[in-house]
Amino acid sequence: MGVGLVGLGTIGVGVVRAFQQNGPLIDERLGAPLVLRRIADIDLDTDRHVPLDAYQLGRDWKELVEDPSIDVVIELIGGTGVALEVVRGALAAGKRVVTANKALLAHHGPELYAVAREHGGEIAFEASVGGTIPVLRALREGLCADRVSSLHGVVNGTCNYILTEMEARGEPYAACLKRAQDLGLAEADPSFDVNGMDSTHKLAILVGLGMGLSLHPDDIPTEGIEDISPVDIEYAEQFGLRIKLLAIAKQNGERLDARVHPTMIPASSVLARVDGPMNAIQVQGEFSGPTLYYGAGAGSLPTASAVVADVMELARSLRAGAAGRVPPLGVETLHEARPETPGECRGEYYLRFTALDRPGVLATITGALARHGISISSVVQPERHESRAVPVVIMTHSAPERELREALEEAARLEDITAAPRVIRVERDL
Amino acid sequence: MGVGLVGLGTIGVGVVRAFQQNGPLIDERLGAPLVLRRIADIDLDTDRHVPLDAYQLGRDWKELVEDPSIDVVIELIGGTGVALEVVRGALAAGKRVVTANKALLAHHGPELYAVAREHGGEIAFEASVGGTIPVLRALREGLCADRVSSLHGVVNGTCNYILTEMEARGEPYAACLKRAQDLGLAEADPSFDVNGMDSTHKLAILVGLGMGLSLHPDDIPTEGIEDISPVDIEYAEQFGLRIKLLAIAKQNGERLDARVHPTMIPASSVLARVDGPMNAIQVQGEFSGPTLYYGAGAGSLPTASAVVADVMELARSLRAGAAGRVPPLGVETLHEARPETPGECRGEYYLRFTALDRPGVLATITGALARHGISISSVVQPERHESRAVPVVIMTHSAPERELREALEEAARLEDITAAPRVIRVERDL
Repeated sequence: MGVGLVGLGTIGVGVVRAFQQNGPLIDERLGAPLVLRRIADIDLDTDRHVPLDAYQLGRDWKELVEDPSIDVVIELIGGTGVALEVVRGALAAGKRVVTANKALLAHHGPELYAVAREHGGEIAFEASVGGTIPVLRALREGLCADRVSSLHGVVNGTCNYILTEMEARGEPYAACLKRAQDLGLAEADPSFDVNGMDSTHKLAILVGLGMGLSLHPDDIPTEGIEDISPVDIEYAEQFGLRIKLLAIAKQNGERLDARVHPTMIPASSVLARVDGPMNAIQVQGEFSGPTLYYGAGAGSLPTASAVVADVMELARSLRAGAAGRVPPLGVETLHEARPETPGECRGEYYLRFTALDRPGVLATITGALARHGISISSVVQPERHESRAVPVVIMTHSAPERELREALEEAARLEDITAAPRVIRVERDL
Repeated sequence: MGVGLVGLGTIGVGVVRAFQQNGPLIDERLGAPLVLRRIADIDLDTDRHVPLDAYQLGRDWKELVEDPSIDVVIELIGGTGVALEVVRGALAAGKRVVTANKALLAHHGPELYAVAREHGGEIAFEASVGGTIPVLRALREGLCADRVSSLHGVVNGTCNYILTEMEARGEPYAACLKRAQDLGLAEADPSFDVNGMDSTHKLAILVGLGMGLSLHPDDIPTEGIEDISPVDIEYAEQFGLRIKLLAIAKQNGERLDARVHPTMIPASSVLARVDGPMNAIQVQGEFSGPTLYYGAGAGSLPTASAVVADVMELARSLRAGAAGRVPPLGVETLHEARPETPGECRGEYYLRFTALDRPGVLATITGALARHGISISSVVQPERHESRAVPVVIMTHSAPERELREALEEAARLEDITAAPRVIRVERDL
């Protein structure tokens, strides 16, 4: 069987290395030869530090897709422009397609699955969420007899690296972002990672596979890590908590409560131990209970491992004449998710106010919270300070989001409050 | 498609519940009805607290296996007696078989896979290792493009519960075993769990799937948790370590270093956070790096979730006419493992001597170690005590097992040493 690769970037080079280094292993496991034949990329001049003589190289992806000797097309361009044309074109030509492109799937998934079905092809995308971690297979096949009630994922390695560094070194966000960029763990323009949107795309895919629900990324409230301060990480530690950027989806009766935001979680939880650029997804099932899947969320070789495993899966079903044995999302048709009404979900909150250091300031703040029915589980009293503004840290009991927002609006109008409070959600059920 | 269940014990009842509660979900995901039709068990009198009117009940498994309306047979008897007949009989009758029976697979796997192949059937056994965790799927399909260099697993929930309790309460082994039995987490005769043999069976299965190597359980050096003392757990904590019963397999050149024993691992590792009856398997791949799979290793409903997922997988390949799309172990033929020569493997060791509290005792012990080239990384000095025997705790640097054993034999002959030393291996690469 023949394989064509479109896009020779970091992951593409990893795929070439996997075929070169593990070729005999792959053929033995498949029981048939699987050959990388063609590579298409607009840039054929840059040295990739990997021998390319064995492949037919070209700049035009259309030629690759039309080549009858190519059975499986790997799309590793990224984005929703040319990549969409490549994937749609390959599927329409009856090819099997492997992609790692979460933005493409989050925005055009249903359309592409339909094209695949219509032309008897298949599409696989394990590498689109959690990099090397076979979490999509776990949801689609390992947990297929069970109903998933919630998902909690650390699915962006850039953010997790930055938060881990901030905690380990006590340095501010900007310095840790800079280090991530120097190490190649963050892009020159990191906004898509640090603002949470990348996690949101991945959550939409996880919700489809795990819960059988279709959810548009625009319907997922999203908050990034740009405003997290080392001081919040320190307070979290005092409460036995750590801060992670979590992608969360919870079945709440008929509603789906799905969101992406920095979250304080128990330091003793397995998810809290996911450090640096690693990813993990914890799944709560009604029968299976909690399961968790951990591994490298990005990187050339780890991601390539997942991409080539997908190629092998498609080759296996091609050989067995079993295209569509399992639909890409585990079911033929997703149900429409009914997102939770904003403000309806409940949760515990960490609140850090910045207030003038006057007697009675704590009573003023807690009074504002009490008037909205927000009950407090603990308070860290401000130390007396040379400067006039001090932090007042409050942990609430479980409270409805709407009441909390109203209380915070009232508190913001208090004259002793000098800046907007920092609000971080707390999830203890992990 | 029709399903028959042989063995209505704890997991069998879980399977019945899964079909009852998730029937419509299962049918929707499969795109076809999957019906539990028949149940066979020698005991049809005990009340299982689950309605059984919808099923054809009988005491004879042979009738069930010969029923042409049964496509998939679930074997949940356990052991290697009748269970072997059931599985062999069902496969020979051309049925698909699902089992959770690790002892059966560890001892008769190759024979059963051959029977399946010969009769165009299939056998699936996700629940045999790690209970609900889809780790076998992950190894067989998620990591199939990669070469696995090592496996480290907490795969026995009974042992992990006991060790977690000993650590949390500082209580001795016997008291914590008793509590496990009271909670139904350990059997009346717990020897197979606590002596490590259950973990050894599971390791043999993991090595087959992950590394493509056939390894007989008898070739795996195995040590249980019966001799672990709370004091060892306390010392581990002082060194930033925790004690887990690990099933370990490492590729060491052409050799396979596979063993089961209590192991000290870094408290900061994800595996160290696996508490109570939970299981986790960490896999090191050349391309994928470390991945980890966590979840309930036992229990009626979690195990049933994995069993029914297997039934669905077999139903899918039956419908697609794709039996044998993936061989049960990921390759048609395993290579024979070449076990590491005993004594050849290297490692760090925790040594707890019990010695008379005399001046110079430490020099005597360290001298014996030094004569065999064992280098020491740290020593916890014995406190002066009322009693005459005191602990002397030594952590070594990496040392060959043979030299360590020789040094310990010499130390055992020293007159100040009053009891055989406690020896626990340390694994830091997690």
